[in-house]
Amino acid sequence: MTVKPIESSLQDKINLDKLHPVKGFTTVGFSAGIRKSGRPDLAIIASAYDCKYAGVFTTNQVKAAPVLLNIERLQNHAGRIRAVVINSGNANACTGPQGMKNAQKMAEITAQELGCHAEQILVLSTGVIGVQLPMDILEAGIPQAVTQLHADHWVETARAIMTTDTRPKGVSHVYDGYTITGIAKGSGMISPNMATMLAIITTDAAISQSLLQSALYRATNVSFNRISVDGDTSTNDSVLVLANGSSNTVIEKDQGYDTFVQHLTEVCTKLAHMIVRDGEGATRFITINVTGAADERSAQTIANTIANSPLVKTAFYGGDANWGRIMMAAGRAGIHFDQSRLSLWFAASELPQSKLQIVAQGVPTNYREEDAAAIFAQQEITVQLDLGIGKAESTVWTCDLSHAYVSINGDYRT
Amino acid sequence: MTVKPIESSLQDKINLDKLHPVKGFTTVGFSAGIRKSGRPDLAIIASAYDCKYAGVFTTNQVKAAPVLLNIERLQNHAGRIRAVVINSGNANACTGPQGMKNAQKMAEITAQELGCHAEQILVLSTGVIGVQLPMDILEAGIPQAVTQLHADHWVETARAIMTTDTRPKGVSHVYDGYTITGIAKGSGMISPNMATMLAIITTDAAISQSLLQSALYRATNVSFNRISVDGDTSTNDSVLVLANGSSNTVIEKDQGYDTFVQHLTEVCTKLAHMIVRDGEGATRFITINVTGAADERSAQTIANTIANSPLVKTAFYGGDANWGRIMMAAGRAGIHFDQSRLSLWFAASELPQSKLQIVAQGVPTNYREEDAAAIFAQQEITVQLDLGIGKAESTVWTCDLSHAYVSINGDYRT
Repeated sequence: MTVKPIESSLQDKINLDKLHPVKGFTTVGFSAGIRKSGRPDLAIIASAYDCKYAGVFTTNQVKAAPVLLNIERLQNHAGRIRAVVINSGNANACTGPQGMKNAQKMAEITAQELGCHAEQILVLSTGVIGVQLPMDILEAGIPQAVTQLHADHWVETARAIMTTDTRPKGVSHVYDGYTITGIAKGSGMISPNMATMLAIITTDAAISQSLLQSALYRATNVSFNRISVDGDTSTNDSVLVLANGSSNTVIEKDQGYDTFVQHLTEVCTKLAHMIVRDGEGATRFITINVTGAADERSAQTIANTIANSPLVKTAFYGGDANWGRIMMAAGRAGIHFDQSRLSLWFAASELPQSKLQIVAQGVPTNYREEDAAAIFAQQEITVQLDLGIGKAESTVWTCDLSHAYVSINGDYRT
Repeated sequence: MTVKPIESSLQDKINLDKLHPVKGFTTVGFSAGIRKSGRPDLAIIASAYDCKYAGVFTTNQVKAAPVLLNIERLQNHAGRIRAVVINSGNANACTGPQGMKNAQKMAEITAQELGCHAEQILVLSTGVIGVQLPMDILEAGIPQAVTQLHADHWVETARAIMTTDTRPKGVSHVYDGYTITGIAKGSGMISPNMATMLAIITTDAAISQSLLQSALYRATNVSFNRISVDGDTSTNDSVLVLANGSSNTVIEKDQGYDTFVQHLTEVCTKLAHMIVRDGEGATRFITINVTGAADERSAQTIANTIANSPLVKTAFYGGDANWGRIMMAAGRAGIHFDQSRLSLWFAASELPQSKLQIVAQGVPTNYREEDAAAIFAQQEITVQLDLGIGKAESTVWTCDLSHAYVSINGDYRT
């Protein structure tokens, strides 16, 4: 096949801005030795004060031990969290009662070093499924890592939670009155579903736990829940937010809350886009916008089905404006529509005024193939499919399916 | 990545047995010139007598023109069909009113040459979506093809309906009293859903239309609806059965019907397996057997989700016994279960007594990695996942996701 060469990689567009310290938080990224390569594999994010904690978690029926632990913490200890300890290289999933003991042990060691209770520690793990954690390595590593906690080590921390990611991912904003800094990791097993990867977001805003949780639901619904790399939802996916209130800026329902939701959504959306741009083997960033639907749920179901279609994704990889596959994928989403009312447009964000109508009323327009090809030669492509039924819409972000995806996932464990 | 080399290809295992003539039927495969390559692209299957006709069709909301035509025929003319005319190279989908006229015109030309009515002709098209049929080529080609109809040209006919297939596909049995001969084509856009590709099956048994239709539902439910290549359901998928009664063997509800269903199921299952073995880029044939479910629908949903997971499929390609991905895929199927009751086994049909338990009660057994690797080095692998809930089960057949799948679909149109 002839894949059109793209000069700079999609991953190069992940610019890690300055990750601002957040008052009262310190972090560390550390090489404990879980990975044989010596890559950083242990991270801690700690707060000097008790934090309000909100979380959303994988909808997968198979949940990793640390996910179960964090859900328990959310129910019983969501007002007094002090730290998150994270290992990469091992997911601690499908590890049974021993896995649960090991997650608790990670919390205990971390609490002991930080001088708090185990119930105040959250735990995240990411990596291979079905292997018990090397507890000796963690027992030695966590105390050493704690000694290196620092207010300005966010990039190193983001690096320590990477698996097949090629770039560390972080977003940070100093807003009027408080700072939000978050890090995330992708980059396979990414699907539009509640909580689709690991993200840890911290803020020094003062906010109640219930407001923080509802803000997180609203933010993830239009960010992390709208991205897809391969349609697979991990056993470990989690988004955690910690708010320690040390800025003294108080968020109330009728005082700064809507703005806080906007800010949190901005951070989550930027992190989500970074995850897609660093999707395993990704060479193109694709925005799927389904409009004219009867309701938002229908629009999102169709957008997700298009985003996850292997035939659509390989066509994007090949730079082939094979729009028939988009129509096919829309049609198999299980949502009723009338094919004679469909309209389809392509556009490239890098080419202003490139918006090109491909289908009108279910039939191809007389578009010029070279105009479509020009759009498909770009790295960032937008697809708009209008169902011609109602006014609801939804947007999903995804990447293409490349040879590199197959290579990366063909020998992950070896 | 290091993909373990396999000496003979999976496709080499598609042995086209002798395709027996069926009394009263003649067929032809012809190069009409729709494909620029000169490959055969037009097929006709004709009966000297009126046929009872049964069909199942794509569930895709976007249906190609010939599918709509065949559905109309099923409602109004299912007792007097005389022929099927099939073109490859163009799907006649997303082609609007003109596409419908063209499908009707194909039927008219064929009827004129065969000396019957247009309503007695079925039409199938397969190939690229969104391009109008080259009617001048068909108007010239169909009359020429009709002159070459022959009772013993089934292999050439099977070859003329191929798209990205690497092998023609046909199954034929002379049963006690009647013959069944069928041909099919794959090999992308294959998903477990009603009617997932093109298959045309003929028999000289005498059977009522309603019995033939119910036999086809029963047969497709456990054959074509249980296979998956990539989870994509085409706009054109159709399974047609024609029975012309010329054997004088009469099938009644209480006379030979159950046996007829068995025979039809046998033919459909063999054709379905051929489609998977010739899946785009397939190197491994995988049987997913989900047992211990509360009901068959749950078992099938989980089996389908495993079969369509890109992470599972790439692990099979890499020969990597990465069972955690199977647990992950099962967990995201949307079916409730208790992860601590899951059991998982692998086996290779080529290695007798190779059945290896990997997970017991949600936790990995002490299996030896080299035993799992020996299984994953084989071409035909069986996965059994037991949910530990009930007694229902379901089986789905699929293939792996390879570099070649990406190559084939990255430049299909070019």
